[in-house]
Amino acid sequence: MNNKNVLVTGAHGFIGRHVARYYGERGWHVVGMGHGGWTREEWEAWNLSEWYTSDVNFDSLTANAGRPDCLIHCAGSGSVGFSITYPFADYRKTVETTAHVLEFVRIHAPKAKVIVLSSAGVYGVADRLPITEESALIPVSPYGVHKKLSEDLCRSYGQYFGISSAVVRLFSVYGNGLLKQLLWDACTKIKKNENTFYGTGNETRDLLHVNDAVELIMVAGEHASSDCPAVNGGSGSGITVREIVNQIYSYYGRHESPVFNGIIRHGDPLHYVANITKALSWGWKPTINWKTGIEEYVRWFKEGAK
Amino acid sequence: MNNKNVLVTGAHGFIGRHVARYYGERGWHVVGMGHGGWTREEWEAWNLSEWYTSDVNFDSLTANAGRPDCLIHCAGSGSVGFSITYPFADYRKTVETTAHVLEFVRIHAPKAKVIVLSSAGVYGVADRLPITEESALIPVSPYGVHKKLSEDLCRSYGQYFGISSAVVRLFSVYGNGLLKQLLWDACTKIKKNENTFYGTGNETRDLLHVNDAVELIMVAGEHASSDCPAVNGGSGSGITVREIVNQIYSYYGRHESPVFNGIIRHGDPLHYVANITKALSWGWKPTINWKTGIEEYVRWFKEGAK
Repeated sequence: MNNKNVLVTGAHGFIGRHVARYYGERGWHVVGMGHGGWTREEWEAWNLSEWYTSDVNFDSLTANAGRPDCLIHCAGSGSVGFSITYPFADYRKTVETTAHVLEFVRIHAPKAKVIVLSSAGVYGVADRLPITEESALIPVSPYGVHKKLSEDLCRSYGQYFGISSAVVRLFSVYGNGLLKQLLWDACTKIKKNENTFYGTGNETRDLLHVNDAVELIMVAGEHASSDCPAVNGGSGSGITVREIVNQIYSYYGRHESPVFNGIIRHGDPLHYVANITKALSWGWKPTINWKTGIEEYVRWFKEGAK
Repeated sequence: MNNKNVLVTGAHGFIGRHVARYYGERGWHVVGMGHGGWTREEWEAWNLSEWYTSDVNFDSLTANAGRPDCLIHCAGSGSVGFSITYPFADYRKTVETTAHVLEFVRIHAPKAKVIVLSSAGVYGVADRLPITEESALIPVSPYGVHKKLSEDLCRSYGQYFGISSAVVRLFSVYGNGLLKQLLWDACTKIKKNENTFYGTGNETRDLLHVNDAVELIMVAGEHASSDCPAVNGGSGSGITVREIVNQIYSYYGRHESPVFNGIIRHGDPLHYVANITKALSWGWKPTINWKTGIEEYVRWFKEGAK
């Protein structure tokens, strides 16, 4: 133990549980909060010392969060599509929880470092690739707007109340256990013997393995300040969706070629590639090659996705 | 009656009640909602046909707002100082109520025009005077940040859900009945025989009489669209605080000169003057000279400020 306490909101989620695991492995006392049904045995296996099933709000944080040294705000919406169907719920999951977290910190843990998980979605359709942190923020979905508003609140609490925070703008985080997005969809389609994908296949994505993502999150904690720096979380390489799907097919042992239907889904920018110069300057670097990560993911999926 | 319905949130407030009066005079059915204790006789005198004492949220709007043609969102925080002392309450009054209003409109009144009262505070310390609507939005208080976030939500609901809205960025709105800010403070000080004011006296403010403000709000309703235009609500003239106070002293019959203590209050930019070209192009213009408005205010104050 290092006698440090971290609170992880949304610790039942895909990234949240990996954050909990990672901090736990490094001797932190990890408190988790959020929704999601799991047993004590399950959350203890993810290195949580305490778990509270509840909304993430000022009262629940005040009651259960203690006085964390660090608060990783993983709770929030994780889907462009959800935000288009349920914009108000998306706002509440993302903006409102961030407002509650920041007020909890201001009142009860003013020295805590707050790390807010944001998204490449705040950039929208980037005017230049790869995207630097200084690029214009012109989101193209309610999801992106709400992530941006959360960032604005962090900056405001830094500027006016001295709260230390940092924002990690994650690109396409993946890894074993992820039950949505491209890798999951592709594996699921193979299993169901389907072969058609949205888009043209020429869209680019920047894949970041969740193990690399959580390490960046911890590094961001060391750079949190009242200026609320933002840092891109990506690999720095753009891979086309076609390459990704072909690679999945190959590892899965499927010998057809995927078909792309040409339909562009609303709110999904065509090209995402992170400029990761800033993260590299913080001493972090991605360690898991996308092909290795996908191979592992496909193996996990074929073994029953548990 | 013109068979049109308007909902006014925060209708008990200074601007809200004038909005209610103004729409009522033009034959609208006016429904008010918000906090504030007044009798039926009182709110009827302000032309409200219905009044609901409640928080402004999705449920209360759904229960009581009917299907308005127009929704004027006057509820919200009205003070930089309040936002510094109570940033979370300020967030809830301003951002959260706007989110609820927009969702109510999306679900129950998608053709309604939404007018959100914003503030010159969204500009912060302007790089150039007078301030146009295209100036950078760099607020210097939580109040300004929260007004900006509300504007962002309007734009998002316009862009993704086609909700028609407009934002009126009010400068220093005043008029009989205003119980705070410079005119009120000055009259109160004269009455208490005090003579010292914050600042240097050289700060500039752009005074807009509330009667002109509510007319601009109605005009903005005609320009509401899914692009969510923003329009400055000011007179277009910057008056120094010293000139304003001297004028008040003169109408009040006080023969000293005010003393300025040189202390700059946090969150108050030094100079605010609106470029009102856009509002003028909409066919609106301010009609009440600031000296006339102040003379009337001082008379109202001396008669007992009722």
